[in-house]
Amino acid sequence: MSAETPNEVMVVVRDLPWIRMIDGIDFRLLFTSGETGRWSVLFRCQPGSFFPAHKHYGAGEYFVLQGRMEYRMGSAPGGTWGYEPLGTVHEMTKFPEYTELLFTNFGPVAFLKEDGSVLAMLDHVYLEQLARA
Amino acid sequence: MSAETPNEVMVVVRDLPWIRMIDGIDFRLLFTSGETGRWSVLFRCQPGSFFPAHKHYGAGEYFVLQGRMEYRMGSAPGGTWGYEPLGTVHEMTKFPEYTELLFTNFGPVAFLKEDGSVLAMLDHVYLEQLARA
Amino acid sequence: MSAETPNEVMVVVRDLPWIRMIDGIDFRLLFTSGETGRWSVLFRCQPGSFFPAHKHYGAGEYFVLQGRMEYRMGSAPGGTWGYEPLGTVHEMTKFPEYTELLFTNFGPVAFLKEDGSVLAMLDHVYLEQLARA
Amino acid sequence: MSAETPNEVMVVVRDLPWIRMIDGIDFRLLFTSGETGRWSVLFRCQPGSFFPAHKHYGAGEYFVLQGRMEYRMGSAPGGTWGYEPLGTVHEMTKFPEYTELLFTNFGPVAFLKEDGSVLAMLDHVYLEQLARA
Repeated sequence: MSAETPNEVMVVVRDLPWIRMIDGIDFRLLFTSGETGRWSVLFRCQPGSFFPAHKHYGAGEYFVLQGRMEYRMGSAPGGTWGYEPLGTVHEMTKFPEYTELLFTNFGPVAFLKEDGSVLAMLDHVYLEQLARA
Repeated sequence: MSAETPNEVMVVVRDLPWIRMIDGIDFRLLFTSGETGRWSVLFRCQPGSFFPAHKHYGAGEYFVLQGRMEYRMGSAPGGTWGYEPLGTVHEMTKFPEYTELLFTNFGPVAFLKEDGSVLAMLDHVYLEQLARA
Repeated sequence: MSAETPNEVMVVVRDLPWIRMIDGIDFRLLFTSGETGRWSVLFRCQPGSFFPAHKHYGAGEYFVLQGRMEYRMGSAPGGTWGYEPLGTVHEMTKFPEYTELLFTNFGPVAFLKEDGSVLAMLDHVYLEQLARA
Repeated sequence: MSAETPNEVMVVVRDLPWIRMIDGIDFRLLFTSGETGRWSVLFRCQPGSFFPAHKHYGAGEYFVLQGRMEYRMGSAPGGTWGYEPLGTVHEMTKFPEYTELLFTNFGPVAFLKEDGSVLAMLDHVYLEQLARA
């Protein structure tokens, strides 16, 4: 049984469409894997937008291209790289100004209810569905 | 930032303790990774035991050492190897006779409510907690 | 860009053909990934066979089904599970009796010259080529 | 056996030191994993610098922050994202002007002799050694 080798790709990111994710946050889809669940996107976040409480069921990695991201580690301006280990819970991740960041997650992210149980799963399949819609 | 290299390990599996998972199913814990979420166990399943409906948020791989596992792919006797891709939903996985199988999952498994929403997440952290208790 | 989801598979391993690897060692090919380079096999090793000096450029994991494997960690009889971290160098891995073991490697293995430089790379592509030949 | 969870990290990349890699190419080390062999860097490449012929023994992913990278896929200006699958051979990768790019590789890269055999392996361990020197 053999899992396919993905194609070699070179793409000018600004040529990709913006896809709406949640209020004030859109993404351009760079990569998804049906084998490992890894997904890579470019996020653009309008001033005042935010991700609600979530838990990383796969490690995450980001690079802020411009703007500023505020989360439990502090304030991350343009040029910041970060690693979010598997299991990390982020109460709220805020964008006080217009922000663009590259983001890769190695598996799903669970959005949480107030009691900590799972509200909804964000994974590569959901991103692909949004991209096709 | 550097994630540590795990230690080299050689272990006679029958020397490891059995840990109770759910009714009729115990496991011996072989490996967990805090970086990738991968976990490997040896399951022993009593006659009539079963895993309830679940979704793979990481691919899974198994090898049946003895007994028989019955699931949506059919009946897997001793000597069967299987691959369960990311995203697979298994309605119920049954063990009609005493069964031992090696199992590796590349991330979490979500146990599901009847409406398909997430009841509980089974991941490497939960297995470690059971193993410590 | 999306890497495909591999198919769900259930296979009785003894129905797969034995493929010659090196003198005295054959394998049945269970899984290869063109995305991650992971490969899983069942090895059968005749009495007196061995793997020459090699370095793991991906972590490895094994379970001895029967027989005995002797390597730098000691003597691994049937029922032994082992983890071989990324970067491990094994001088020689010997099979004094008929042995079968499940083996997964998360990337390539380099066979080494006496000076430690690379003689040949064993990876998922090479295994696929042997399996097709 | 449990592989450790890496620490959560947030770092302003320009605060990290430049480390010399080869003539005209330096890197800032963002991440290395002793479990999976993944490594992430920021490369800066002087006008006229290049990577000689190499083969990816792990998939690679890049984003050009500024400048231009020329390789077998064509010319990648600032804002280009690319995916280099496992097994890809790149004859020569050139930087005609000053270029900065984020780069992640999921395992080692082999630099090649003219006959295609392995000259030297570039992996996370080698990058860590350069960073410590």
